[in-house]
Amino acid sequence: MRFKDISIVADTHTKASEAAKQLNGGQKTVSPDKAEVIVALGGDGFMLATMHQYMERNIPIFGMNLGSVGFLMNEFKEAGLIKRLELAESIELRPLTMTAKTAKGETNSALAINEVSLLRETRYAAKVRILVDGVIRLEELICDGVMISTAAGSTAYNLSAQGPIIPLGAELLALTPISAFRPRRWRGALLPQNSVVEIEMLDSDRRPVSAVADFTEIREVVSVAIKEEATIYSTLLFDPEHNLEERILKEQFLP
Amino acid sequence: MRFKDISIVADTHTKASEAAKQLNGGQKTVSPDKAEVIVALGGDGFMLATMHQYMERNIPIFGMNLGSVGFLMNEFKEAGLIKRLELAESIELRPLTMTAKTAKGETNSALAINEVSLLRETRYAAKVRILVDGVIRLEELICDGVMISTAAGSTAYNLSAQGPIIPLGAELLALTPISAFRPRRWRGALLPQNSVVEIEMLDSDRRPVSAVADFTEIREVVSVAIKEEATIYSTLLFDPEHNLEERILKEQFLP
Amino acid sequence: MRFKDISIVADTHTKASEAAKQLNGGQKTVSPDKAEVIVALGGDGFMLATMHQYMERNIPIFGMNLGSVGFLMNEFKEAGLIKRLELAESIELRPLTMTAKTAKGETNSALAINEVSLLRETRYAAKVRILVDGVIRLEELICDGVMISTAAGSTAYNLSAQGPIIPLGAELLALTPISAFRPRRWRGALLPQNSVVEIEMLDSDRRPVSAVADFTEIREVVSVAIKEEATIYSTLLFDPEHNLEERILKEQFLP
Amino acid sequence: MRFKDISIVADTHTKASEAAKQLNGGQKTVSPDKAEVIVALGGDGFMLATMHQYMERNIPIFGMNLGSVGFLMNEFKEAGLIKRLELAESIELRPLTMTAKTAKGETNSALAINEVSLLRETRYAAKVRILVDGVIRLEELICDGVMISTAAGSTAYNLSAQGPIIPLGAELLALTPISAFRPRRWRGALLPQNSVVEIEMLDSDRRPVSAVADFTEIREVVSVAIKEEATIYSTLLFDPEHNLEERILKEQFLP
Repeated sequence: MRFKDISIVADTHTKASEAAKQLNGGQKTVSPDKAEVIVALGGDGFMLATMHQYMERNIPIFGMNLGSVGFLMNEFKEAGLIKRLELAESIELRPLTMTAKTAKGETNSALAINEVSLLRETRYAAKVRILVDGVIRLEELICDGVMISTAAGSTAYNLSAQGPIIPLGAELLALTPISAFRPRRWRGALLPQNSVVEIEMLDSDRRPVSAVADFTEIREVVSVAIKEEATIYSTLLFDPEHNLEERILKEQFLP
Repeated sequence: MRFKDISIVADTHTKASEAAKQLNGGQKTVSPDKAEVIVALGGDGFMLATMHQYMERNIPIFGMNLGSVGFLMNEFKEAGLIKRLELAESIELRPLTMTAKTAKGETNSALAINEVSLLRETRYAAKVRILVDGVIRLEELICDGVMISTAAGSTAYNLSAQGPIIPLGAELLALTPISAFRPRRWRGALLPQNSVVEIEMLDSDRRPVSAVADFTEIREVVSVAIKEEATIYSTLLFDPEHNLEERILKEQFLP
Repeated sequence: MRFKDISIVADTHTKASEAAKQLNGGQKTVSPDKAEVIVALGGDGFMLATMHQYMERNIPIFGMNLGSVGFLMNEFKEAGLIKRLELAESIELRPLTMTAKTAKGETNSALAINEVSLLRETRYAAKVRILVDGVIRLEELICDGVMISTAAGSTAYNLSAQGPIIPLGAELLALTPISAFRPRRWRGALLPQNSVVEIEMLDSDRRPVSAVADFTEIREVVSVAIKEEATIYSTLLFDPEHNLEERILKEQFLP
Repeated sequence: MRFKDISIVADTHTKASEAAKQLNGGQKTVSPDKAEVIVALGGDGFMLATMHQYMERNIPIFGMNLGSVGFLMNEFKEAGLIKRLELAESIELRPLTMTAKTAKGETNSALAINEVSLLRETRYAAKVRILVDGVIRLEELICDGVMISTAAGSTAYNLSAQGPIIPLGAELLALTPISAFRPRRWRGALLPQNSVVEIEMLDSDRRPVSAVADFTEIREVVSVAIKEEATIYSTLLFDPEHNLEERILKEQFLP
């Protein structure tokens, strides 16, 4: 696809700014609010932040990796940007919507491209009930926490908690516990992507739990509902030879 | 669906034969070769064997559990069989085709509803190369063995080897190592269901490996190709309230 | 051993108080501060609290289980308490001393019979350095947290985080990560019991971490040192047929 | 310690022979049967074989690594061999004795420095009973296999089967299952080093199982007893800065 108005955004560290300058020298750019496409320079954290920033306007993003992981990004090259954008393949990532109720009675929503995670805030283990599509599936889980990860996020936090890597096309979510204490040795579940997962905090006065949707943290939640977002999504652009599906496949064969 | 010609088959142990006699007393039955539907009485092993036996003719099977696991089966009840068959929901399970070449130059094929697994035959660790859709994904895996499991089989052998449970609709296969020695800590991969997986034995003279597709064992294989079977499948019947998807979901929440 | 002055302490819930009343009816008791032996009635949590309370005075404790786990305890029976105390075998549990420095410059110490654990306080992953006996063993671990567990505690929190169960006589500590993100798949280590483990928080301004020694929580720590306590220990009494070593062995063979 | 009569043995591959020639040029050597110390050149496999060969005569062995792992070995250097031998620290590794009874009624014994392992020989899962010091600890384990690993062997096969790494001084054995099917999710146990472990094959006619003590494989065993060898041991020499305890510690902190 041909893009006319390109905007280049960069992480704040020196390397990213330098790279942005070099690219800016090579071609005409516009400010992000006028752009048809965003070129993001940085690491995975910056890329995720950029996706959140432009998701509602649905501007496609072409990330170039200057950081340490770069899972959602392309290789950095100075030359040939216009051509690469033209040849890039696009993929749509549908975020999760977290709706969290707090002990104070507030309700907050936030989007998550990677995962929605819950973790105890103090020394008291979290005690939670898990419902899937309105059915109680786990009456009581005592744990450090629990998360719902998308396929795109499955190689991130989910993997650290021993959750499985999910291929992008699989339309699954991983429900992965963090230090399950009872039932001991519970390893989590793979759920259909359109599942509605509700997590109720039990004994929440004594056992405060925090909920995080990517960058948004809500403290002292009493219940959290997670479902696939219906209307908003993020469009990523990839060089054809390094698309995200291939990466997630490759990632699974890393030593 | 209404079935006219019902055949009842039972495992050889006493309990199953007794149960078959009771059911036979209650209704007219035919021999399996004339049946429109098979009622299988036994445990998971017998059910799997029955599925293999009638898969090519594609006769639907309604299993009733008399054994210790009964994952693919319904609850045993003497009464109401005709009504249950009428109300039953059907699910199609597509098997894998294993094509194995042996050290002697033979080529054998067999179907697997649960999994195709490889295991070393002697004290020498297996050394294998893994290709997915023609691309080498693991140049060399030293291990006790490795398996490809379907979703239906994911709660069986695959689970023992620490592989993930896969929901039925997910259209995924689990590639799961058994005691991966190098790369150490490799945990396997989830692959699209239509993947063609090839496993080549390295140093196979010194390191004999056996391949098993459910009940069919081929000794001293040098290469094994596994892919979804295109034309043959097995049709299972379930009481609506205990369908297989629900079971695989439930299985994931067992303590 | 024969004890003259017995004190009975009970958890606050009804069942424990009732049990205490029944026992008190049967024999003369003294207040804890005059006791030669403490009989503790409750679950594992109450037992652990009782051990902490009387550890410095080193009064032996005979726990009777009224709770849901009862790992450190004996079976509850109304009759024969004096005889049981006389025949009981004793075991000494040596606690860990945690010395924690906080961001505000305070230094706090606390004892841990089960484990010393660290966990991130907010959405920012903990980033820590681990030293054993003064040698840096892990330059940087990014994780939810990490713990040092004693053998006695190895079946508790440590097990939830996938750490190994340690037999009592083994003189080992388990160093177990919680959701290790980098190095990914790091599974922890078994260390000699007399090791001095130091954990330094990196980037601690942005990434607050809390440290917990059994019941004592210190917020916003910048470094934590953990070592076996030299002088203080807790003495537990067990019916000969159900001693703690046997239990830890049994626990490892639970399904 | 000063050694007068040194013998150099080398693996059969070119690199090892070359290295042996270079060393031989530098100093007087004797044949192994007259040696006070053996210098072994190769990888871990060759080292293990050398240890087995000279264990009964208890000649100390100084291994130099020319292979891919070299866990039990020192760094290869041409120069300074005499001095290194003089300064080397020694460690005694006590092997396990496996006593295996076969279906044909034979009884065979063999020593294992790393582990004694059992694995199914055909497609039928192994079904075994496990006794520790004469007490049945697991009535029935259905699995691919099971192993008993020493501390020295804990970083080898045991690690591949997800068993814990054991520090050398810990005086523990790891009992580690291979693909435990029932009880599902059983993770094994750590046992005192002086435990006597007996494994009985159940249904062994239908389910043949092979037992391996390092290099010695016994087919179709019906029972296997494993215990620490009382009189024979292997003495390894290490450069002081790279002793085996340090290595096992380091190994646990590898990414």
